[in-house]
Amino acid sequence: MEGVDYLSDERQKAQFDVEAMKVAWAGSPQALQLSNRMANLVANDPAFEKFTRPMMGRKELLKNTLRKAAHGWKLIVDLRLTEEAKWLRLYIDEPAYTDLHWGMFIPAIEGQGTEEQKKKWLPLAQKMQIIGCYAQTELGHGSNVQGLETTATFDPQTDEFVMHSPTLTSSKWWPGGLGKVSTHAVVYARLIVAGEFHGVHGFIVQLRSLDDHSPLAGITVGDIGMKFGNGAYNTMDNGVLRFDHVRIPRNQMLMRVTQVTKEGKIMQSNVPRQLIYGTMVYVRQTIVADASKALSRAVCIATRYSAVRRQFGSRDGGPETQVIDYKTQQSRLFPLLASAYAFRFVGDWLKWLYMDVKERLAANDFSTLPEAHACTAGLKSITTTATADGIEECRKLCGGHGYLVSSGLPELFAVYIPACTYEGDNVVLLLQVARFLVKTVSELGYKKPVGTTAYMGRVASLMQNNCAVQTAEGWLNPGAIVEAFESRAARMAVRCGRQLAEFENPEEGFAELSVDLVEAAVAHCQLIVVSKFIEKLQQDIPGKGVKQTLEMLCYVYALFLLHKHQGDFLATGYLTPKQASLANDQLRTLYSKVRPNAIALVDSFNYTDHYLGSILGRYDGNVYPKLYEAAWKDPLNDSDVVDGFPEYVQPILKQKLRTAKL
Amino acid sequence: MEGVDYLSDERQKAQFDVEAMKVAWAGSPQALQLSNRMANLVANDPAFEKFTRPMMGRKELLKNTLRKAAHGWKLIVDLRLTEEAKWLRLYIDEPAYTDLHWGMFIPAIEGQGTEEQKKKWLPLAQKMQIIGCYAQTELGHGSNVQGLETTATFDPQTDEFVMHSPTLTSSKWWPGGLGKVSTHAVVYARLIVAGEFHGVHGFIVQLRSLDDHSPLAGITVGDIGMKFGNGAYNTMDNGVLRFDHVRIPRNQMLMRVTQVTKEGKIMQSNVPRQLIYGTMVYVRQTIVADASKALSRAVCIATRYSAVRRQFGSRDGGPETQVIDYKTQQSRLFPLLASAYAFRFVGDWLKWLYMDVKERLAANDFSTLPEAHACTAGLKSITTTATADGIEECRKLCGGHGYLVSSGLPELFAVYIPACTYEGDNVVLLLQVARFLVKTVSELGYKKPVGTTAYMGRVASLMQNNCAVQTAEGWLNPGAIVEAFESRAARMAVRCGRQLAEFENPEEGFAELSVDLVEAAVAHCQLIVVSKFIEKLQQDIPGKGVKQTLEMLCYVYALFLLHKHQGDFLATGYLTPKQASLANDQLRTLYSKVRPNAIALVDSFNYTDHYLGSILGRYDGNVYPKLYEAAWKDPLNDSDVVDGFPEYVQPILKQKLRTAKL
Repeated sequence: MEGVDYLSDERQKAQFDVEAMKVAWAGSPQALQLSNRMANLVANDPAFEKFTRPMMGRKELLKNTLRKAAHGWKLIVDLRLTEEAKWLRLYIDEPAYTDLHWGMFIPAIEGQGTEEQKKKWLPLAQKMQIIGCYAQTELGHGSNVQGLETTATFDPQTDEFVMHSPTLTSSKWWPGGLGKVSTHAVVYARLIVAGEFHGVHGFIVQLRSLDDHSPLAGITVGDIGMKFGNGAYNTMDNGVLRFDHVRIPRNQMLMRVTQVTKEGKIMQSNVPRQLIYGTMVYVRQTIVADASKALSRAVCIATRYSAVRRQFGSRDGGPETQVIDYKTQQSRLFPLLASAYAFRFVGDWLKWLYMDVKERLAANDFSTLPEAHACTAGLKSITTTATADGIEECRKLCGGHGYLVSSGLPELFAVYIPACTYEGDNVVLLLQVARFLVKTVSELGYKKPVGTTAYMGRVASLMQNNCAVQTAEGWLNPGAIVEAFESRAARMAVRCGRQLAEFENPEEGFAELSVDLVEAAVAHCQLIVVSKFIEKLQQDIPGKGVKQTLEMLCYVYALFLLHKHQGDFLATGYLTPKQASLANDQLRTLYSKVRPNAIALVDSFNYTDHYLGSILGRYDGNVYPKLYEAAWKDPLNDSDVVDGFPEYVQPILKQKLRTAKL
Repeated sequence: MEGVDYLSDERQKAQFDVEAMKVAWAGSPQALQLSNRMANLVANDPAFEKFTRPMMGRKELLKNTLRKAAHGWKLIVDLRLTEEAKWLRLYIDEPAYTDLHWGMFIPAIEGQGTEEQKKKWLPLAQKMQIIGCYAQTELGHGSNVQGLETTATFDPQTDEFVMHSPTLTSSKWWPGGLGKVSTHAVVYARLIVAGEFHGVHGFIVQLRSLDDHSPLAGITVGDIGMKFGNGAYNTMDNGVLRFDHVRIPRNQMLMRVTQVTKEGKIMQSNVPRQLIYGTMVYVRQTIVADASKALSRAVCIATRYSAVRRQFGSRDGGPETQVIDYKTQQSRLFPLLASAYAFRFVGDWLKWLYMDVKERLAANDFSTLPEAHACTAGLKSITTTATADGIEECRKLCGGHGYLVSSGLPELFAVYIPACTYEGDNVVLLLQVARFLVKTVSELGYKKPVGTTAYMGRVASLMQNNCAVQTAEGWLNPGAIVEAFESRAARMAVRCGRQLAEFENPEEGFAELSVDLVEAAVAHCQLIVVSKFIEKLQQDIPGKGVKQTLEMLCYVYALFLLHKHQGDFLATGYLTPKQASLANDQLRTLYSKVRPNAIALVDSFNYTDHYLGSILGRYDGNVYPKLYEAAWKDPLNDSDVVDGFPEYVQPILKQKLRTAKL
């Protein structure tokens, strides 16, 4: 029935103040209010309906996205939204060219443009009189920026750069917004002056006419085709771009760091090149924040549906058992719930880290940069991997119905997974972390490790101490947990360092041991997430039972990791099998404690049904009637008899296939 | 360039006879020839083109499938294909109603129908004069067949059953082929005679007119809507079905086991009820075989593209390193390659097991049935889980381009993953295995364990022996490997048994410890796969280097699992950290040995480019030109200026949004 809350019993079980938890999740009462306002603005505007999206053909789909983007921009302008604009775009929940315009094109100019360039281009971009994208990757070149092939050759005769795509593999490939919408792009190309290569730089290039939108002379541009999923990222016009000797004025090279003069002289400004790492810290911090959003959506859907769904265990003809009561379900679902919270808080901490790095950079203090860079690279990697896997796990936790697009989970998965690849492939990033860890270990004798590697300073004791936990309750101790994770990470890093030392050629050793190095990097990054969760709990968190509930989740997160990776903890000799087993016992107990709070914990994310986009995850739990209703909206149900029956089915039934035209 | 083999260097590196390996993979020269003929028949017939599938709307997509199915059936009839027909359907590579007609509807009648019923219905079905599906699951009921709500009430007055859907959740939901095509269904319903419930049984029910295909009176039938992926399973009309007191003759209840007489008397035949387990062994054996097919396709794509793709490591401007040369890539790819072979061979063994069970059943010997049932349930579970995860891992191993539908991997994933849920949810199945293991352990005193649990008979020594391996080479020993897996499995099962004994109520204990029980079941099932791979290698396998290469893959598979689950091996005390570390060292060495054989090992699957359906996995390695070419076929590239530009983009650029109509 409409208007009935089928999950109200579940909500009454909660042992904490849900409204206060909402504040804790949002970050502040103000953030909650703002986010709430934008979420409801979108949810209540029929222009942003998204149910029919997966059924649309590609053209219709993109046109629909253009309409939504225009409507969203109109709202932003009309309502004079500033900070809120990004929330609005978030809740519209549809990848669009605007993501790249605001998220990459404008920041690239802000970060790499001179004052003059910023003055010229930013106002145009901020009013959307031009629409831009970020054209870096090429058909044959992804992570390795130095391998890009596109050339920008300086022509001193005309004071221009000639942009050119010398090979097929040099075609720009993947940039979002490039294919069908952007009028401009920041294009990364090899700077060639007087026949010499001077590194890869960004250039502002106009691609399309501002009047009729047709591609300019010498420019071949289009969409690269369908991607994973139904709607998903197919609302984005990821593009292909080739240049045939396209000329741009010299002043469209972004020259904040490197300048080319009229005479073809290369000059380096005194702007520190490390600035680029500051930007990477920023971008990856937003990716970690997005991971917690995506994972929490999936967990919200799976948790609510696990309370609705019943299976087996009926006694005397009574109702079957709610699947959320099965330990097998809890052991897969609750660690993901805990991970969503863990990633939320480590994301917050990363925001702080970025501010800290920014301040230091402004004061020419680069000392924490390598550590901050390694730490954000690693957190980007482990949170996005866990989220991608976690969304698919949530889908499986919904049984067969999770496979329906109307569950919301297939789309959420398909739209999320690129995060494991973009802004640094997750394995490549872990190798960077490993490189930093090994360096940290090798320099311990004379260089004090800082920030998230500070624990390495206590390496001697971490190599020797053994775990003191003797009971399952003994694991409910932040000190014991942090020490376990520190010891595991330190021992794995030191071990890698020792193995590397056996190689004559360090690079060969690094290549040969890369798998173990990746494992050591994961151990270090998991330690960071666990520690930051624990640090968060040392703060004041208002609201009845809120802090206690978060403590419970923190233990679930840590002990789940400990069990999953018990091989590491045992192999390094820090834990005995008995202690690992006690941790597992405690984990089981914790699941029972999470159980009554589960629905309230996902309610605390404060997601609207529109944003969730899932029948299984409906707030009111009224799943089956709505699934049934939704089925009839499939185009196949427009008629009782299917298109193609007379041509392709009837001849079979009537044994007249031989004469049928197929 | 066309006609050039860009992977020929790779092919020349192989250290074994590829043609002989193709035979080993196919099972026999005859099987290879047959499969080859069917694959090429499909690949060379333009009617089976599948590239445009992901771009189609739902209606067009299904109509296209109906066309292909009709064309396929025409070929089967015209060419008088018998055994080959299932290969033909496999290589058409498009889920269709015919899968359920041949795979579920006909077998259900064969297995559960009386001789009279078989005589009446099978000829109709075999000529496709009727098209059937298998209607078991309901909107509110999946795995638990006893929870089904649909009723079949006997009316002795008219000698009919009244089929009825008493609630919304009793709507049949999911059956493939039900939505828009099937004329008949085997419907599972609660048999009610004289007001009493007599178990769930199958009934043949006509759904649609054989003339105009319209649904019969009292029947509501339709498609349940879009599913995960672009084309994927959306070519299948998974359906919803409701009955409003639909009457069928009494003789349409499948009565091989249970009969209802005209007078309403319930009679049990002397056909053993265990027959149903025989069928389950059969169906799950085909699922394991399919797992090796799906995984090998993904591995073939990822392996070939890993040899084509280059990234980083360029020296002096030379070409970058092939990504297949990175240990991080090898450590993720080669275990999957080894798994594909492992699943292939355990699938073969399951075929033998099924024949054995069938023979025993015919002789009224039920002694091995529980073991065979547990074993197939477990193998279905672990192979489908590993395959689903493995396909996604292969996609990630292809970097960004794996996200393009033209890579073939998104579709392969989306179409495969239901295997984790259908025919028994993978976790539910592992719990069944665990239940059997615990029972086996508890009965050790007086009952000799058989088949795949025979090792439990040596439990005393398995609990005490410790691993004797002392060098990395020491792990290249089948005996050492089997003992390690046996000890781990035995110790985990015994441990679970001991913990269970501490509970007063065994069912409560089982529920509380279910997560540990699942882990013990996984350990047992992995042992089976490892053992059967090793047993296979004890046979004669002709061809230069074939057996040696398979031995190498067998070690990769086993040591990869050992490393991944080293927590189990260490926690049970069978291995020391040092021994686990030696296994890992050996694994690294093995990867280097697999490397030169990698392309030839995926060539041995003998897949056509049509069947692979992947630009990244092309046999000739000519990836980038073909990716580029394919992009332009996206409907978005029909015009230079995108649909919606005048309405939704121009008003933004021209700052005229306020007056625009959105």
